[in-house]
Amino acid sequence: MDPAAADAPTDGDGGLPPGRPVGWTGEALRLLDQTLLPGRVVHVDVTDVDTLVDAVRRLVVRGAPALGAVGALGVVVAMRQARREGWDAVRLAAEVHRVRTARPTAVNLAWAVDLVEPLVPQGEAAVLAAAQRIVTEDGAANHAIGRLGADWLLERVARRPLRVLTHCNAGFLATTQWGTALGVVRELHRRGVLEQVYVDETRPLLQGARLTAWELARDGIAHVVQADSAAAGTILGGLVDVAVVGADRVAANGDVANKVGTLGVALACREAGIPFVVAAPESTLDLATAGGEAIEIELRDGDEVLVHAGVRTAPAGTRGHNPAFDVTPARFVTALVTQTRVLEVSAGRLPGDSTNDGTA
Amino acid sequence: MDPAAADAPTDGDGGLPPGRPVGWTGEALRLLDQTLLPGRVVHVDVTDVDTLVDAVRRLVVRGAPALGAVGALGVVVAMRQARREGWDAVRLAAEVHRVRTARPTAVNLAWAVDLVEPLVPQGEAAVLAAAQRIVTEDGAANHAIGRLGADWLLERVARRPLRVLTHCNAGFLATTQWGTALGVVRELHRRGVLEQVYVDETRPLLQGARLTAWELARDGIAHVVQADSAAAGTILGGLVDVAVVGADRVAANGDVANKVGTLGVALACREAGIPFVVAAPESTLDLATAGGEAIEIELRDGDEVLVHAGVRTAPAGTRGHNPAFDVTPARFVTALVTQTRVLEVSAGRLPGDSTNDGTA
Repeated sequence: MDPAAADAPTDGDGGLPPGRPVGWTGEALRLLDQTLLPGRVVHVDVTDVDTLVDAVRRLVVRGAPALGAVGALGVVVAMRQARREGWDAVRLAAEVHRVRTARPTAVNLAWAVDLVEPLVPQGEAAVLAAAQRIVTEDGAANHAIGRLGADWLLERVARRPLRVLTHCNAGFLATTQWGTALGVVRELHRRGVLEQVYVDETRPLLQGARLTAWELARDGIAHVVQADSAAAGTILGGLVDVAVVGADRVAANGDVANKVGTLGVALACREAGIPFVVAAPESTLDLATAGGEAIEIELRDGDEVLVHAGVRTAPAGTRGHNPAFDVTPARFVTALVTQTRVLEVSAGRLPGDSTNDGTA
Repeated sequence: MDPAAADAPTDGDGGLPPGRPVGWTGEALRLLDQTLLPGRVVHVDVTDVDTLVDAVRRLVVRGAPALGAVGALGVVVAMRQARREGWDAVRLAAEVHRVRTARPTAVNLAWAVDLVEPLVPQGEAAVLAAAQRIVTEDGAANHAIGRLGADWLLERVARRPLRVLTHCNAGFLATTQWGTALGVVRELHRRGVLEQVYVDETRPLLQGARLTAWELARDGIAHVVQADSAAAGTILGGLVDVAVVGADRVAANGDVANKVGTLGVALACREAGIPFVVAAPESTLDLATAGGEAIEIELRDGDEVLVHAGVRTAPAGTRGHNPAFDVTPARFVTALVTQTRVLEVSAGRLPGDSTNDGTA
């Protein structure tokens, strides 16, 4: 990865417009390196498939809608590399497939690649235009999700201002801008009805403590960070009015794959009788997958659990068990908020039951 | 704290008999420093109340039954300091009170101090003998808990060998020897019916990854460490047959205060239909406390959540919310195993209902 080119669009972050984790410089896919946050704001430019796949796997960029943008723009990266290196169509298709499968759980990565790949024969400009449309539409979708989610919550939760718990990061960093779960949080804040956010730190890679807290601090939104294991006590102790999370894939029956630990949050919400809300664009719904049992859960390196800031905390011979996601059964999902609709899933309104009425 | 005296009883660990976290050297209360495990095995000798209170608060020693031993031997430490420094009875009583209240949640600390303090007028030898009786009896109790717990489980769980999940550390390090929850695990292992232990890492201070994994590795017991947030998925995914944890305080109605995160494990076990078992000596039952809402939950420094291995992970202005414990309602506690009885709490057999039939 090259350091961000000096002539590319820059801002205070030194590489992309504020609040954007992914962009196109004209020459390269530019990513805000999320592995270095909150300590350092560094952008990297990606011009080849190897670097792209590595960046996705190392979580330089993560979050289902952001991975959609990366998948679409990644096809452009592959086409440019094909031109430079003289790949034939078979090689290009194989490299696009590597982009598509760089991580298995978030459906948006494959969804976006599948959307733009048929345009490859029309040339780079056509694919780039389609990819940029995905980016633009995701931004609009997130704002719509925020409005719909806030409307739904304010109709159903009496307490003002609201106390919201979130798990992992479903903010602008996980999308193209604004965020899904944090889009709802930002909208509540904008309307002056948000008291505080309980941010689960989100082990092992601390996306809550590092990324969500950083986003909320930037926006001046009151928040505290807690161990993931504190969530159940916080919820059952009456400190939280609603939990709002993102999703990596939603099956036709309403089962939700999201960052490991989401299931525990949902169980606690059900027990406490507060809403458990999933905020995700329509592109995260995977109606081809019947239920959660069919979703592949990425099992990551166990050392992510055993090593902290370069220091190993467990004995030398101990192994880590490190599933990156879990599946929350539909019966615990009070509401699924997309840019076009709010499905009360646990009450039986399932994503696969009605016609998908399209993305905004 | 002085380094362990050369003439004191030592072993491979350089300070206490193997498998003992707390002891009396003849001159001092000796502690295995649990903050340095698993990287370093270091013992510290405590000869004054300030050092003792600091060691308890910094978790050099932790775990309810171990804190009982520390409380009782701590009265001896205070008496010896009183003799050296010429304290009157009022000052001594005040210092003993500081020992008693060094941490609020584990009942055993206060219980043990209250047991030996009436002997102070009889002199140091009488108090020391009573304290050492507490230590000896706790060791015997743990072995009995292990046997009773294993018997109960093997009657109720069909699968062989068993897969056990545990949270935090309720091993020998948390007691005087053998352990409570890990006493059950060790007994299952001894009987050849243990497959593997899922060890929750136990944020923020990683007692699972650092201490439980260290104990299990020493004993050659198969285990993996997982993020606390993985527990619900592991349990609902069918990978676990039973969860066994310790307790810091059990109220008369069967509510259990234990390390933060225990509640989430219990919720997942209830949902999965597997037993959630609490292993604790009778000294951890607090029949004077009616229910969990009356148990004081220690709120620790938020930076314990925000700093890893000396590196701050959250933005500078972000605060941490750091409850050290949570309360699991009795309705989720399938069984409470003490050294004398197995109470099926969720089925209505509550600690406060029957006469306490005494410690073994």
